Order: sequence, then C-alpha cells, then structure tokens
Amino acid sequence: MAEVLLHGLTVDPSSRVPVYRQIADGIRLGLEQGRFQPGLRLPATRDLARALDVNRNTVVAAYDALAREGLVSSHTGRGTFLAEPRIPEAEADPFAHVFARAVEGSKVASLLSVYRTAISKEGISFAGSFPAADLMPVEAFRRAMAAVLRERGEELLSYGPTAGHFPLRETIAEGMRRRGSRVDAEGVLVTNGSQQGLELVFRTFVDPGDTVLVEDLTYTGALSVLASLDARAVGVPGDDEGIRPDLLGRALERHRPSLLYVQPTFHNPTARVMGEARRREVLALAARHGCIVVEDDWGGDLRLEGQDLPTLHALDASGRVVYLSTFSKKLLPGLRLGWVAAAPPVLERLVALKQVADCGTSPLLQAALHRFLHEGGLEDHLRRVKRVYRERRDAMLAALQRHLGDRATWTRPEGGLFVWTRLRHGLDTSALFAEAAERGVLFSRGELFHADGLARDCMRLTYAGVTPEQIEQGMEILGELVRAREGKPEAAPLEADAVPIL
Amino acid sequence: MAEVLLHGLTVDPSSRVPVYRQIADGIRLGLEQGRFQPGLRLPATRDLARALDVNRNTVVAAYDALAREGLVSSHTGRGTFLAEPRIPEAEADPFAHVFARAVEGSKVASLLSVYRTAISKEGISFAGSFPAADLMPVEAFRRAMAAVLRERGEELLSYGPTAGHFPLRETIAEGMRRRGSRVDAEGVLVTNGSQQGLELVFRTFVDPGDTVLVEDLTYTGALSVLASLDARAVGVPGDDEGIRPDLLGRALERHRPSLLYVQPTFHNPTARVMGEARRREVLALAARHGCIVVEDDWGGDLRLEGQDLPTLHALDASGRVVYLSTFSKKLLPGLRLGWVAAAPPVLERLVALKQVADCGTSPLLQAALHRFLHEGGLEDHLRRVKRVYRERRDAMLAALQRHLGDRATWTRPEGGLFVWTRLRHGLDTSALFAEAAERGVLFSRGELFHADGLARDCMRLTYAGVTPEQIEQGMEILGELVRAREGKPEAAPLEADAVPIL
Repeated sequence: MAEVLLHGLTVDPSSRVPVYRQIADGIRLGLEQGRFQPGLRLPATRDLARALDVNRNTVVAAYDALAREGLVSSHTGRGTFLAEPRIPEAEADPFAHVFARAVEGSKVASLLSVYRTAISKEGISFAGSFPAADLMPVEAFRRAMAAVLRERGEELLSYGPTAGHFPLRETIAEGMRRRGSRVDAEGVLVTNGSQQGLELVFRTFVDPGDTVLVEDLTYTGALSVLASLDARAVGVPGDDEGIRPDLLGRALERHRPSLLYVQPTFHNPTARVMGEARRREVLALAARHGCIVVEDDWGGDLRLEGQDLPTLHALDASGRVVYLSTFSKKLLPGLRLGWVAAAPPVLERLVALKQVADCGTSPLLQAALHRFLHEGGLEDHLRRVKRVYRERRDAMLAALQRHLGDRATWTRPEGGLFVWTRLRHGLDTSALFAEAAERGVLFSRGELFHADGLARDCMRLTYAGVTPEQIEQGMEILGELVRAREGKPEAAPLEADAVPIL
Repeated sequence: MAEVLLHGLTVDPSSRVPVYRQIADGIRLGLEQGRFQPGLRLPATRDLARALDVNRNTVVAAYDALAREGLVSSHTGRGTFLAEPRIPEAEADPFAHVFARAVEGSKVASLLSVYRTAISKEGISFAGSFPAADLMPVEAFRRAMAAVLRERGEELLSYGPTAGHFPLRETIAEGMRRRGSRVDAEGVLVTNGSQQGLELVFRTFVDPGDTVLVEDLTYTGALSVLASLDARAVGVPGDDEGIRPDLLGRALERHRPSLLYVQPTFHNPTARVMGEARRREVLALAARHGCIVVEDDWGGDLRLEGQDLPTLHALDASGRVVYLSTFSKKLLPGLRLGWVAAAPPVLERLVALKQVADCGTSPLLQAALHRFLHEGGLEDHLRRVKRVYRERRDAMLAALQRHLGDRATWTRPEGGLFVWTRLRHGLDTSALFAEAAERGVLFSRGELFHADGLARDCMRLTYAGVTPEQIEQGMEILGELVRAREGKPEAAPLEADAVPIL
C-alpha cells in the first residue's frame, strides 16, 4: 500500500482489480468526493509510477482510461488535467455542446493521437514515411524558384486557377500518359499533397453513415478522413498480392459501397504490390457492382527492382478509377503538392470542393515545381534516391534477419520506403514501442494502419531516411527488446505515444 | 414562327408563355420524343438567338432552366450538352447515384457558378476583390524566399508542424496582441488563406442541418462552405453600423444557433464598419445565448482614414470569439496564407481537422513570409498601397457621383477594396452585368453576397486593382448602360456569367 502524490490515492498489488484500474478508480473517487479539484494537473506518469512503485506504463494506462471516460484531458507539452464538470453554464464555458459530431471529445482525441509526433531528432526513427531529407534536391529547386519569381512573380503571387497551374497539370497528365493513362491536363486537379486529394475525393462520394471499402491494412490518413466524415470504413483482408477478390466480391455484395479505396503499388503499410491479373479482377468486380475505385499511387515511382505494372487508372476504360498521387514521397514533402486525375463529372465536383476548401493551391509553388520538373530534376533525383533506398532497404532486410530472424516475418519490398514486419507469438508492439522510444528508437505500430485497430503484433519500419549504420544500431536494440519482452505480461496500449503515419 | 438549328424548335412571340420557357420546353420535348439525342451539343446561345430572332439572354435563360432541371450540362469552354438519360446502367455510367449530397447536380452547379470566372485581362474589372497586382512587393519577397531556401532549405522542404511554422505563428500573435488581443503563438493555426480557415472553423462547429447566423449580406465564400456542409445560413439584416442588435437578438432566440459569422471591419461586400458600441452589444448578445462568434477580419489592416477599432477578439474575455484573417488581401494572394486564432479547445480541433485536410501548409511559404514580415516588408507595403487605394477610392466615388449620381446610392468606405452601390428603382443588375461585360466592364452582382439571393439591385465595385483612368472609363459605360436599361423589361439572371467573389 502506498499513499502518495495524489492525496489518498493507493494501490493494492495483491488485489484482483488490475493496478491501472485501481489508479483510475482512485482518481475518479477523489474527483467525485471533492478531494481533487477539476483543473488539477496530475503528476507526471514517471513520478506517480515511482511514488506508487508501479510500472510507468500502468500509470499511462490509468490516465488513458480516464481520458476515454472524459475525466481527464491531455495537452501536449503541458500535462494531464482533471476535467471540468460535464455541464458548465454557457457563460462559464463557451464551448459546451457546440462542437460538430466529427470533433467531439473522444473523436478528436483519437484523430489527434494518431498524428501526435514523438520523433526525436537525436534518436533513430523508422517511423513516419518521410523520404530522406539529406537527399533532397534543394539547390536545383532553389534555382527553379528564383527563376519563376524573376520571370513571372507578379502573376504567381496573385490568385491562380482553382484546378491548378496549367503547365503543371499538363506535365502531370503527360507523365500519366507515359504510364498508359488516358488523361489530359483538364482531367487533373492539383491538391495540397495527396492528403487533400483524399479528403476532396471522399467528400465527393461519401455522405455521413456511408460505407467505404478499404484494404484491412491501409493508410491511416484515409481512415482519418473517413472518420471525420462520419463514414464507416470496412476493411477487406488481403494476401501477398493485395486485396482478396473472393472477399472483395462478398463485401461488395453485402455493403453495396459507392467507393473502394486501394493502394495497388507499394501498399502502405505492407509494401506489397498487386499483380496485373489481380488488378484486372478488382476492376471487373468494381464494375460489376457499380463501385468507384480510388487508386492511391503515392509511391509508384519508387520502384527499386522488377518491372512497373500498369496502374488501375491505365487499365480502366470506364472512367470509374479516381487516381491520386503526390510529389511528397518521391520529391519534396514541404511543397505539399499532389494531384487527383478523374473523369469530367468527378473532376468538376472536386474543383468545386477545392474552391470551397481553399480557393486553390499557391501558383508560386506549382510554377516552381513545374520549372524543376521541366528541367529534368525529377529523373535525376529519382536515380539518386533509388540507389540509396536500395542500399538502405537491403541493410534493413539484413538487420531484420540478424536481429529478429527467428522472431518475426517480413516481406521483401520491391519499392517504396518501408518494410512491414510481423512479430511471432502475437507479441503486442505497444509496450515494445514505449521501451524502444526510451532507447531512442521509433517505429510505426501496426494497429495505426488497421481499419479495426488490429495488427497489434506488427511494425512498419521505414528505411528511407536512415543510414545503414543507424539501421543496424536501431534493429539491434529492437531485437534485444523483443527477446526481453517474451514471457512478460502485455502492457496497456500507449495511445499518447503514437507516431505520425504520413 | 421560326424553325431552326434544333430541328422542329420554334417560338411564338405572341404566346403568354415566356419565350425562354418555350425554348426550354421545346428542347425537352425533342429529347423525350427522341428527335434530339442525349449528348447532343446545343447551338451556341448567340447562334440560336440569332436563328430564333430572340435576345441572347433569352436563350441563356432557357439553357439555365434546362440545367436546373438536369436536362443539359455545361462544360466551360466546350459548350452545353443534352444530358444522358437519368437512370443509366451502372456499367454505362459509373457516376450514376454515387455523389455525396453536397455535390449533387444542382448543388455543384450553384457552387461552381458562383466562382466561374469571366474576368478578361483586356477589360476593366471592378469584380473580384483582388489587391492591386502592380503594387505587389515581388522583389522583396523574392529576396526573402531566396534567403530561407539558402539557409534552411532542407528543413523547409520537409514536412512541417500541422499548426504552422512556429516563428510565423509568433509574428502573427504579436501583431494581434498589438491590437489588443490576448493570444500567443500556440493559439494560432496557419491556414491556406482564410477560405480554409472558414472551412475548418465551420466544420468544427457545424453538423448537417445546423443553422448558422450570418449578416444578410456576407462573404460568398462563407455561404459556399455552409452550403457544402448542408448547413442553413440565416441572414440577419444590418444598418450602416452592421448587424442590427434587435434582429440579432430575435434570431438568436428563435434559431438557437451555435455560430454567428460576422465581418465587423470593412464588411464584404458593403465596406461598412461596426462601431465599438455595436461590437460590444453583439458580443453581449452572443454571450447571453451561448453562441460562438466567428470574426472574419480579412481587411482590418486596410484602413484608409479614421481610427482603428478594437476587434471583437480583443474585446472578448470569454474565448468565444474565433478570429480569422489572411495575407491575401493586404499582401500576396498567391501565397495562400491566412490564419485562425482561437481558444485552446477550439484550436485543438482545428489542428486535427487541418491534419486530416492536408497535413499542414507548406513550411517553405510560411518561412519566406515570416522572413519578409521580419524585415518590415508589410509596413512598407501597406504604406504604399494605402496611398494608392485612397486615390482610387476617391476616383471611384467621384465617378459614381458623375455617372450614377442621380440613379444610385453608395457608402463612402473608410477602408478595404470596394464600394457597395444600390441602383434606384430596384433595377436588376443581371441584364446590366451581361451588357457591361460585352463592353468589357465587370462588376460583382449583389445577389452573390446575399444569404437569400436578394440584393439584385446592388453591385460591388472594387477600386483597388484599377487606375483612376480605368475607373472613369468603366463608370462612364456603367452609367450609360443604367440609363439605357430604364424602362426595359428585366431579363433572366445570367448564372453562367457570375464572377468570382473572392
């Protein structure tokens, strides 16, 4: 029995009630009895853990439980506070009961937790899916920017067309045509990264309550958009070749969704590639059920080996594929430039929503990117980064073999930025995540990518932004921690430590 | 009787059925009888008008009516086409019945028509609310951009924080504190122009079907966001001092809205300023009814005479004012940079939605703007443009007196970019708009700014982007056309010719 920082709060390790629950209940009781005042800042988890002589994760789990129950609120960098009473007067709290459903308490917390960043510049990060910062073509881009500002500054610093800078739309369409798509500049909308593309596309097709089919493992940013629209994401399982046609057919019949969202190439998070026959099957199924297909091809240009496959957009003749891509992963994330290509009735709606959303993307950034592309900057850059990514991928695969060879399985990525790893014995990566973070190693937890929050025994390990030496060091630490965790009880999930999943 | 381009289509000028209705019905009949095939491109309005010997606007009105009924579709630059049959097989039209309610046929048409641009570079444009392009500080911005790319290119071309580039947030907060607000950098979210700010704010508070109070004359971009969210905008009339407290009180009681959207300073479109006493009254009413106030202060820095008034945000101690502004109107529209300042529970939600919307605004643009501001660029620029705007405003007021003195009323703007003008005798500006456009003169029609589409006898005349000579020429033409229209029957509205209302 310990009596500590929060006056009257005790735990009994011999009780059958889990310790985290005892802590949470104790705090709730104190609040109800008036011993703890609303607004009180709770002790740091580390301090309370030490005082109560429990594992720090236990305190984190207790705070998490209280947060889910709306009894405490967390503010990044400031701490965790006991919540104000539920029904304040309008005068006292102008924000009581006024928020839209999509951003009510628990919902906004889950949106935020997914993105909260825990990336330390000093550690080794396999988290996020950032391209390598040290390989960015900063100088070539700087020249392109200087040139367009000199030549057309006044025009580019004025409002531009909502659908995008026309020469950039032409260049994008040309690139897609080289890969077999039938598309011209008028069929392309420039967006603020493919995240905005996703949001505009989903808003074009999805009403609140609608069901959208996704791969059961999928891009978290897509799940967030669907959540913010009050839509239901139904995950369809896949195999090594991508989404399973038998299960897709059943899901299409059962849910009659208007949309299917897929990443056929270097799928995030698994890095798998959908074969050509599978692509055709998926398209045929979608056509049979009158379902629009949203193809997210964020990484198609990042092939490290093997042959390019046709995109769904190139294989489709009906116009039912809405295609998304981005310059963030293959070039410069800080430009925030991506695009959507779609048939005219869809594009017209996307442009209307884009106008409502932000009146169009900066013409200056678009023109500078166009100049950079026009001068061949992307080809040079891709040649350079792919050589490095190949080396880093191989280092990651070798390190996995060395340090987790007998304790995990993974696939060999033909391209993209990361490796997907599943731990044997269903080991939950939540506790592992916290322990690794304390040792300066970060990864992305599998459950962030799962439509139903499963895949807790998985990790996404991004190799693109780390050197072979960092990979070896980081994986050695992960291997050591995985072995140490075996046989230990599972800790509660650490929502507050989630890393961004871009 | 005339038989013409569309086989079998005739009109009877002596009929009591309006001619535009006869044309529309004739086309519908041809479609139903199979004489006209779906997909048929209709004749240009000018050609059909000539062939039928009717006014061109009559044909425009007929096509408009058919578009509202879903029987034709227009594609900018390509023409107007007879629509495909309503219930095609899923195989034939992948887009049948799949769009979200917010972008269904008629709704997306109305969103788009508002923004469709008819601005000719050769004519004289009093439309839009663009700052003067020739006064832009292009060279100083170019230097700022070059400096930040040289010094921190790698960082600024990577992903940045969702809420914005911290030094820019600091500078923005500092500027607001100088005007009396209690706010720090953490209370500021950088957005892609204030249009994105508006969308994020409305999404934070508004569920489908909710009522939002607006000034009856208001910014069209705000009305568009509310329409896209399936919200109901209820317009509260104002007087010379802004929204009327008696009517606001009644509307608050009757509708119990969670939000009130206002522009207290240089209100768009009327340019009026809400006095300080009125500001306090509005805040007190909002507090009494537990209503959040969204203050859009896009133009507060563009005061041309008189004393600055405190913003609602500065007058409010409760945190119920959500404040929006932008660098588009006072500096460079092409940066697409604006901001929202709000209390922590609101800002937290805005940041979550911003992350979902586009993962954050380009750090490069933000850093370049910050550098520009840091070097005093904004003060220099404002001094320069305000001198010019004063001259142009005075030229506009003088030209109004000269050419419309006996036929219109207007107010003298103390700041901002435009003058609001009401024509006597309720003259509808739709036909005037078309006639003026043919003579190369553009303005923004009043009804675009009215929550219920009223104010058809009003025009917004932007002086900021035109020289005194252009103002004199353009107003002379408008004066002539207004006099010529007197006594003529009103033509149908010209939706297709709407100009952007930024």
